[in-house]
Amino acid sequence: MNEILQQLDLIIAQRRSADPDASYVAQLHAQGLNKILEKVGEECVETILAAKDCGNETSTEHLVQETADLWFHCLVMLSHLGTDSQAVLDALSDRFGLSGLAEKAARQGPE
Amino acid sequence: MNEILQQLDLIIAQRRSADPDASYVAQLHAQGLNKILEKVGEECVETILAAKDCGNETSTEHLVQETADLWFHCLVMLSHLGTDSQAVLDALSDRFGLSGLAEKAARQGPE
Amino acid sequence: MNEILQQLDLIIAQRRSADPDASYVAQLHAQGLNKILEKVGEECVETILAAKDCGNETSTEHLVQETADLWFHCLVMLSHLGTDSQAVLDALSDRFGLSGLAEKAARQGPE
Amino acid sequence: MNEILQQLDLIIAQRRSADPDASYVAQLHAQGLNKILEKVGEECVETILAAKDCGNETSTEHLVQETADLWFHCLVMLSHLGTDSQAVLDALSDRFGLSGLAEKAARQGPE
Repeated sequence: MNEILQQLDLIIAQRRSADPDASYVAQLHAQGLNKILEKVGEECVETILAAKDCGNETSTEHLVQETADLWFHCLVMLSHLGTDSQAVLDALSDRFGLSGLAEKAARQGPE
Repeated sequence: MNEILQQLDLIIAQRRSADPDASYVAQLHAQGLNKILEKVGEECVETILAAKDCGNETSTEHLVQETADLWFHCLVMLSHLGTDSQAVLDALSDRFGLSGLAEKAARQGPE
Repeated sequence: MNEILQQLDLIIAQRRSADPDASYVAQLHAQGLNKILEKVGEECVETILAAKDCGNETSTEHLVQETADLWFHCLVMLSHLGTDSQAVLDALSDRFGLSGLAEKAARQGPE
Repeated sequence: MNEILQQLDLIIAQRRSADPDASYVAQLHAQGLNKILEKVGEECVETILAAKDCGNETSTEHLVQETADLWFHCLVMLSHLGTDSQAVLDALSDRFGLSGLAEKAARQGPE
């Protein structure tokens, strides 16, 4: 269940050169950075609205879907500018002192 | 390098009940949902500005740091509302048809 | 050239009860608060992107158009929630100590 | 009650060259475009949150204050980039066909 972001990075990289008529990712890349950033902003606002509407199981599901949209468009943005999710995860890892050993220790259950 | 988001979920859950004077996460939870969502919005705008300023190695690094800030505050938001990064990754996985087998196939190198 | 915001308030109030198929304002009201706020957020991101792209006469014109879109959707939001531009202008006036007399003094040229 | 935006344009233009330690506007200009746009984005998110919290007289007042903050920082942005509120009002006027005569006709009461 873990390499999902890395797999999405690969899928986004592969689709970048696809036919814009057949691929949403190719279409976003073809429309350019401003269009991608508009989508990042839109999905962020929709995430904030979904969070404000939370209060039952249904709307937690809606929040999760909107956050997925936000992160997905972030991945397209990172790809468009020549970087990827691994760089973001590395930055988070550095910031919280999660070395390989720390990661191991933080895993649940026996190794 | 993979369970970083899950580890952060754990750290954020653990710090939720910490002293707000000693923990930024505890402080955000204590200030409430609106404060957390303001931070999500701020970090999104800073991510967009960093993306517009990209054009050399230095500013790609800045974009990565801002995206890390955005995702981190999303994790705090998800935690505050009783869900977590796994739900978001599951939603992305469902959406792109990444089953366990598909994940295996998508991994680079021999299994 | 001055009562434009007040006129727009009136137009927006009049169109609120119009046929959603014939009026964009009626359509926004019918779609509800979240849709209106999504538009406010989208137009804000487009304003920020236009500001970053400024650097010649053409793009200052683009910034002006995007800011007009942002303010227009703010007016729809205010109307949807039972208030108007006058309340916002009054708040700005109070904040900057612009009484009627101060306004007069601030006007350019002889009265 | 009408020339408030134009007066604010003047005040913002005057304060641009003031001591950043003594004037918030001078401070914003000195910090540069990204800082001003971060504030525009922040105030937009706070406006959206205030709108979601509306439901009584107190919070309509809060919405009005946040919208005032948003518009004020838009004025600083416009000033920083060499344009002003009049250009935005002209754009709105053009868009809605509010000529001088139309303005007259739209005014309430006898002329």
